[in-house]
Amino acid sequence: MTTDAAMIEEMKSKIRAVPDFPKSGILFRDITTALKEPKALHTMVDWFCERFKNEKIEFIAGIESRGFILGMPIAYKLNAGFVPIRKPGKLPAAVYSESYELEYGTDALEIHKDALPKGARVLLVDDLLATGGTAEAACKLVKKTGAELVGAAFLIELCDLCGRDKMKGENISAMLEY
Amino acid sequence: MTTDAAMIEEMKSKIRAVPDFPKSGILFRDITTALKEPKALHTMVDWFCERFKNEKIEFIAGIESRGFILGMPIAYKLNAGFVPIRKPGKLPAAVYSESYELEYGTDALEIHKDALPKGARVLLVDDLLATGGTAEAACKLVKKTGAELVGAAFLIELCDLCGRDKMKGENISAMLEY
Repeated sequence: MTTDAAMIEEMKSKIRAVPDFPKSGILFRDITTALKEPKALHTMVDWFCERFKNEKIEFIAGIESRGFILGMPIAYKLNAGFVPIRKPGKLPAAVYSESYELEYGTDALEIHKDALPKGARVLLVDDLLATGGTAEAACKLVKKTGAELVGAAFLIELCDLCGRDKMKGENISAMLEY
Repeated sequence: MTTDAAMIEEMKSKIRAVPDFPKSGILFRDITTALKEPKALHTMVDWFCERFKNEKIEFIAGIESRGFILGMPIAYKLNAGFVPIRKPGKLPAAVYSESYELEYGTDALEIHKDALPKGARVLLVDDLLATGGTAEAACKLVKKTGAELVGAAFLIELCDLCGRDKMKGENISAMLEY
């Protein structure tokens, strides 16, 4: 086992599995048990920074609300700006909106129209890549501003749900695969 | 004008004022215009870290969702753990809950019962201290876990709304006062 593989296993051991949340049959990966340990928190943030440190990232776009948790310390450390992608009605100025499908019905995300300069190099950050609907909508929003989407980074990828299929052509990094 | 006062004025100039959001008559202080500038982002985070660096902070408790934005880089830099305080139904394990009054009706916040060890030194972080209802509920939640609330830090305080009155006895820091 390489040092990196050992680190990944160690990190996985910090994530709590909660059965039947938010509903019956779902095994929820709870990152709060990792976030509360300073060493695990540093390992996560540093893993992403190491991966993108040579990509000249100018902005981190974080998806509400767990994408805020990971995105901000990455922005701080990479000396980038931070741009929130939020649920409808939360951003106060003019927005672009992108809706996406849920199991039943639809939801939407928004970004400020003036959030990103044209051509700016942006890294999208969220905690989880599952079916990919949220991530796909967020990618579209970044591109609508005219910025360049350099990559999309997730703490956890649920590989069975094939979220990557919705994001063909994007540079995707996931730290922990389940 | 001292260097610190000049820095505060500079930071205030980065915060956008949006009239009539979320409703008529409210002047909304939009921090996204500051967050997207790396220098302003660093100034904010470093201001809080400098203030609390000798307080042996073990955990940052951030209030959903803009408290996550500020809380995580502070946790990263102070080498503390991060604990989210969330809206009802978002945390997957057993929680303490605390309700608080809104202008019309009530809302509530939750914290994982096992989030904080007894006696742990905790700094509460949020973006805004307004009427203080949210902050007061969050303080109570931290104390319910048995942890010690060392202080409460806010990026913005709307002084007219007297939020401090609800938090008598707490060590409150606000970077930008309006």
